[in-house]
Amino acid sequence: MMPQEEARKLDRFIQLLLANATVFVSGEKLAEALKVSRMTICNWVHHLQKQEMVIEIKPKIGYRLTQVPDLLLPQLIRRELRTKVLGKSLYHYFQVESTNDVAHQLAQQGVAEGGLIVAEEQTQGRGRLGRDWYSERRVGIYLSLILRPILKPRHATIINLAAAVAVSQAIESTCSLSTDIKWPNDVLVNNKKCSGILTEMSADLDQIKYMIVGIGINVNHQSFPKSLQGRASSLFLEGGRRFSRIEIILALLRCFEDLYLELQKQGNDAILERWIRRSSFARGKEVSVDLGDKKIHGTTIGLGKEGTLRVKLSGGQIEDIMSGDVVIWDSVK
Amino acid sequence: MMPQEEARKLDRFIQLLLANATVFVSGEKLAEALKVSRMTICNWVHHLQKQEMVIEIKPKIGYRLTQVPDLLLPQLIRRELRTKVLGKSLYHYFQVESTNDVAHQLAQQGVAEGGLIVAEEQTQGRGRLGRDWYSERRVGIYLSLILRPILKPRHATIINLAAAVAVSQAIESTCSLSTDIKWPNDVLVNNKKCSGILTEMSADLDQIKYMIVGIGINVNHQSFPKSLQGRASSLFLEGGRRFSRIEIILALLRCFEDLYLELQKQGNDAILERWIRRSSFARGKEVSVDLGDKKIHGTTIGLGKEGTLRVKLSGGQIEDIMSGDVVIWDSVK
Repeated sequence: MMPQEEARKLDRFIQLLLANATVFVSGEKLAEALKVSRMTICNWVHHLQKQEMVIEIKPKIGYRLTQVPDLLLPQLIRRELRTKVLGKSLYHYFQVESTNDVAHQLAQQGVAEGGLIVAEEQTQGRGRLGRDWYSERRVGIYLSLILRPILKPRHATIINLAAAVAVSQAIESTCSLSTDIKWPNDVLVNNKKCSGILTEMSADLDQIKYMIVGIGINVNHQSFPKSLQGRASSLFLEGGRRFSRIEIILALLRCFEDLYLELQKQGNDAILERWIRRSSFARGKEVSVDLGDKKIHGTTIGLGKEGTLRVKLSGGQIEDIMSGDVVIWDSVK
Repeated sequence: MMPQEEARKLDRFIQLLLANATVFVSGEKLAEALKVSRMTICNWVHHLQKQEMVIEIKPKIGYRLTQVPDLLLPQLIRRELRTKVLGKSLYHYFQVESTNDVAHQLAQQGVAEGGLIVAEEQTQGRGRLGRDWYSERRVGIYLSLILRPILKPRHATIINLAAAVAVSQAIESTCSLSTDIKWPNDVLVNNKKCSGILTEMSADLDQIKYMIVGIGINVNHQSFPKSLQGRASSLFLEGGRRFSRIEIILALLRCFEDLYLELQKQGNDAILERWIRRSSFARGKEVSVDLGDKKIHGTTIGLGKEGTLRVKLSGGQIEDIMSGDVVIWDSVK
């Protein structure tokens, strides 16, 4: 078999196992249905077992997927995706250095708008401002989306805000937890960071060639390294129970797609409004901002039309803060 | 020999030929100096002859580079470079699709700030807004610089303006031709475009990862395709004589480096001032600008602090035009 054909058949094989989860299916029938040898089926089973799918083998009877695995398999995501663009091509990895890096490679190879990369684990997960993103295996959501919006680079911030709104909305609807958004794109639960977004782009000064929106969500983490304690948390820790990563991803993709399509049709306003509605940081928050060449103190009064954070200084002057400026919050009211 | 060692020795061989241009050097001496076989020397000579270096072979006497070739060889550029950063690593190609594309690949492989890519010909030279850049063999300058500035993406415009100032200054100082800069970065001679710049970047919303500044200069073109006639020209056509591409490159790199280092130390002001001094478009030019969602008419009144073009509308309102907006000039005074 050609590698591509084999990948297609393996994909179909996983679908069959999932469709027949918890019952035995004979190797002979599987081989017949997929037009492969029984040896190939046997090899595939060992391959999937190594990747932590629990498949029982009963000689002369067949194979049984004992439970639907808690993995972000494309076959599981695709079943209930219901999006037009996002996730239409889907790449699943058990371990990558960084889903954003994989997404860059795929984007450069021409993968179309909406390409979705998900990983069970990142060994070099990246966050904003050169920080790491803690990416423990199989408990978090580590995904990247390839977008090709017809926007100028200066409009990239709004996509970033849209992603934060989508994460916030997905967490609230699937986990029944209240969220807050810290400008620009951290999603907090009980004032602790449960999600971060790293938006990257390849652009000239006139237009964006492609954007990568990388999203990390701490879902079922039971603990964090000491350095993150007090600041980071997970939906499990805040909600007191485990949540389905796939359900959150599905809600996230649907919500982000709605916002993304709306943005391209109707401009920034709807996203700005929703962001403001979902964030306690948008208005009346006392902040101290390090702009590099100067520090300012003031009170937030909303967002600028490109997604900047508007801060009214004590003298009455208004400053628009762009993403990328280091923001230190004096008081978290 | 390892490929890298061979490349180093071939580089040294070209240097020896250039140092001894117009006189014969014996193959034996060359082989001895470079610690290679005479057969290797012979192969190299054939290789260079194929690449249009005129090398005379006299049996039992040796090899003679009959003239310093009109090529942008690193060995020729390096001799008088005198820069600290720009061009410190140098990549010369006889033909590439696009020097910007090569630069992206090299930047991703980690080539340091200042890496310079030059080509004798581009088969798919690119300009702004998806346009082609006409890149005839050996008559133009087609180069790209890799920069790694510690800047936020929104500051990229200023580097673009600095490049235009450097091109303008390099043409004036080496060719004694008067130039004008059309906002943002076209350099005109006698109101015809002789140079264009395509600045691209890889960035997140917080910082630029790397920038590629691609510069095309029409130097010794004797004619242009019909579609470009009237708008494009070359220094040869406007100045009435041929100019040294290497001299222009050297002046350009020195000037751009000065501006680039100054920018990082002292901010935008010096570049904005120089740009304004070199451009008839900065002040008092009647313009009509297509902003996509609206069209405006007004008169230019200078540059904003990030390099935007400030236009005063008839009603007195001031608009800041960003790079990327399509600018149509009503009248070129």
